[in-house]
Amino acid sequence: MNAMNAVNATHDPSRRSWIESANLPAAEFPLQNLPLGIFLHKGHSRGGVAIGNQVIDLAALLNVGLLGGEAAVAAAASVGATLNPLMALGNQAASALRWRLADLLDRNGCNATDRGRLQQCLVPQADVTMQLPCDIGDFTDFLTSAAHTERHGRLKGLQPPLPPAFKHLPVAYHGRSSSIRVSGTPVCRPNGQWLDDAKVPRFGAVESLDFELEMGAFVGRGNALGKPIPLCIANEHIFGYCLLNDWSAKGVQWWEQVLGPFLGKSFMTSISPWIVTSEALVPFAKQNSAHQASDPSPLGYLTDSEGTSPSSFSIQLSATIRTARMRANGDSGTRISSTSLDAMYWSFRQMLVHHASNGCNLRPGDVLGSGTLSGDQVTSMGCLTEMTSAGRHPISLGSGEQRPLAARRRRNRLECDSSAGGLRLCEFRQLQG
Amino acid sequence: MNAMNAVNATHDPSRRSWIESANLPAAEFPLQNLPLGIFLHKGHSRGGVAIGNQVIDLAALLNVGLLGGEAAVAAAASVGATLNPLMALGNQAASALRWRLADLLDRNGCNATDRGRLQQCLVPQADVTMQLPCDIGDFTDFLTSAAHTERHGRLKGLQPPLPPAFKHLPVAYHGRSSSIRVSGTPVCRPNGQWLDDAKVPRFGAVESLDFELEMGAFVGRGNALGKPIPLCIANEHIFGYCLLNDWSAKGVQWWEQVLGPFLGKSFMTSISPWIVTSEALVPFAKQNSAHQASDPSPLGYLTDSEGTSPSSFSIQLSATIRTARMRANGDSGTRISSTSLDAMYWSFRQMLVHHASNGCNLRPGDVLGSGTLSGDQVTSMGCLTEMTSAGRHPISLGSGEQRPLAARRRRNRLECDSSAGGLRLCEFRQLQG
Repeated sequence: MNAMNAVNATHDPSRRSWIESANLPAAEFPLQNLPLGIFLHKGHSRGGVAIGNQVIDLAALLNVGLLGGEAAVAAAASVGATLNPLMALGNQAASALRWRLADLLDRNGCNATDRGRLQQCLVPQADVTMQLPCDIGDFTDFLTSAAHTERHGRLKGLQPPLPPAFKHLPVAYHGRSSSIRVSGTPVCRPNGQWLDDAKVPRFGAVESLDFELEMGAFVGRGNALGKPIPLCIANEHIFGYCLLNDWSAKGVQWWEQVLGPFLGKSFMTSISPWIVTSEALVPFAKQNSAHQASDPSPLGYLTDSEGTSPSSFSIQLSATIRTARMRANGDSGTRISSTSLDAMYWSFRQMLVHHASNGCNLRPGDVLGSGTLSGDQVTSMGCLTEMTSAGRHPISLGSGEQRPLAARRRRNRLECDSSAGGLRLCEFRQLQG
Repeated sequence: MNAMNAVNATHDPSRRSWIESANLPAAEFPLQNLPLGIFLHKGHSRGGVAIGNQVIDLAALLNVGLLGGEAAVAAAASVGATLNPLMALGNQAASALRWRLADLLDRNGCNATDRGRLQQCLVPQADVTMQLPCDIGDFTDFLTSAAHTERHGRLKGLQPPLPPAFKHLPVAYHGRSSSIRVSGTPVCRPNGQWLDDAKVPRFGAVESLDFELEMGAFVGRGNALGKPIPLCIANEHIFGYCLLNDWSAKGVQWWEQVLGPFLGKSFMTSISPWIVTSEALVPFAKQNSAHQASDPSPLGYLTDSEGTSPSSFSIQLSATIRTARMRANGDSGTRISSTSLDAMYWSFRQMLVHHASNGCNLRPGDVLGSGTLSGDQVTSMGCLTEMTSAGRHPISLGSGEQRPLAARRRRNRLECDSSAGGLRLCEFRQLQG
């Protein structure tokens, strides 16, 4: 089991694939990544693994007989329209599949016969439509960036701007599962109710829309109701990660919010379609650097000795905005944020442990969002509310454009991507329609 | 379609069944009710209808050939382990089944041959274990009682105690779906983090537990993402109702609550297992009396002319507590609350319309909770936090017992029931274990 928590042969950066598109310097899906997803091809949704510009059809791979043992069990759990059955098996199954695929796809590790059989299982990514990777039973969104929380607290005039509980527990709320969609699904400008400048409630199409740059974790094996998950085994319950955009109509949210966010967010949440497995991220593990010596010690159940493995990851994230005018001009857009997972005060495994600490059962496929990953710097803010001081100071997009992302500008395109070291993990594109 | 919104032959209070247990004065399931649920019998979960002390096995009923047309379609959608397929058909299908069953079960409406065939489809309720009636994709809990909200606001020192948005929109938060269980499932005393008397965060088994007496509505036919539901057709999207107990660890909730309730509630929510259909409640429809002339007019999308049918129901609810000592003494318990749906400032159809107003998609089987149904009176409070002023004044349970429901008293039994007119709708029993 522990092999999954240590750097191993599947991570070797010197390995190259016989699928040449996976070896390009900017390849999103090199041999070391091998993320899992559900793809739609010829009217049929099923599980696949991304490599270069191809998808490996796992059902086809099973049929050509290239898999055995636990790798075959993992693929058999991935032939349906969701990856929940694979997630429920625990991370060892996905790991066995990863090891087998790393060898089969290796330029030096695969004979001509096997290569020929595997080639029959490839579908060009250009020919598929990615689907949600799993049924997301419950979606929980956390609030782990102190910089984001403090800036919002100041904008709202809260005193203190950082809530007292923030450094004692990972703050969270239940999000809406039904409206989670994969990146690329157009966002409809929502209707909503908000207080106008005269403090009168209004209802109509919202005047502005924000993005929130987050990472999401997928629960793998679940826990039974009433059975908390101790921190020492929390990693075994995290199947993998995605990028997450928590679209927010802040005017609606701030007016309606008595018991937390509701319609200001429930109109849509976007996630990147490929799940980067926990094992793929092992080389990028790092100590959590957000805690200062002056911070309170977490209570026992949340105390992370980082004995098993460091609890954070070295992952950089960025957001780029591309307006209609930029697209018309062939401009690739303006990067408006560069941040990292260092923004997280609490780790994903602390979030998971806290979530289950009252006995709440987590199920395979549940998603835990990090909350907006804003760093301390002006250049590392993860949403426009911070960048524009709630709309008071429009950001500059270069070439004279100074308008913030807003529903009026319905053709802006927001692109986010994340990278860990030299490994590009996944990309997220969203057209606000 | 409108027949479902008007009193019809299925409601006739003079009708009696040839199943005599349905005709008893205190019968929970008379001929006029016919609620739907999922029952487990001989290792197999499937849909059924309650009548007297029996369950009609809908799969068996299909097999004996007593159903045709839309009633058969409805039964065929109910043979699996969830009622979601039936809910997705829209309320007309369940209505057709109701009409056919009302005739088949009527003392004067069923010949001996049909009666004999139907008898083969009956399973005694004593022999079955009720299951969740459907997969609940999302659970949304509202806050519709002004009395409950104001009392809690005062206990927390909020100024004003009633949030400004309360009378402009139905306040709500996303709840946890995974931990919803049917009545009778023991509640585990949860662990949690709270501020002790010295204002120091503590973690451990919570010191007290509250109940919250609510009604829940099940979404029937859903709406597509981005397509709001207008008020005039909202009733068609509500499949039926249940009792709901929103177990709450208030000490945890009040400390953690930055973005709304989370672990203070997610350890379990209980619902009654039988869904009373919207059609069964038609005779109990009444005007919403909670709005005063001095209250603000709702915005257009929430303006309920009550043209289609009145938006509230004449339903009384009560909560009874039965301690371990009472059980040992054969005491039937102490009624601690008597309240009604008049406590709701917003109707279920306004809640549903508001929920979908931003384009959020509701799915068949989603649950909308009313929030704690506290009335104005001391005798009509729907939770112990109000009854005890947050633990400061223990309630009297008679016979010298004065302790509030608390985790220390783990063998208390809380019973809630609701009734509309002379028709007892459903009962809810919960052992706090």
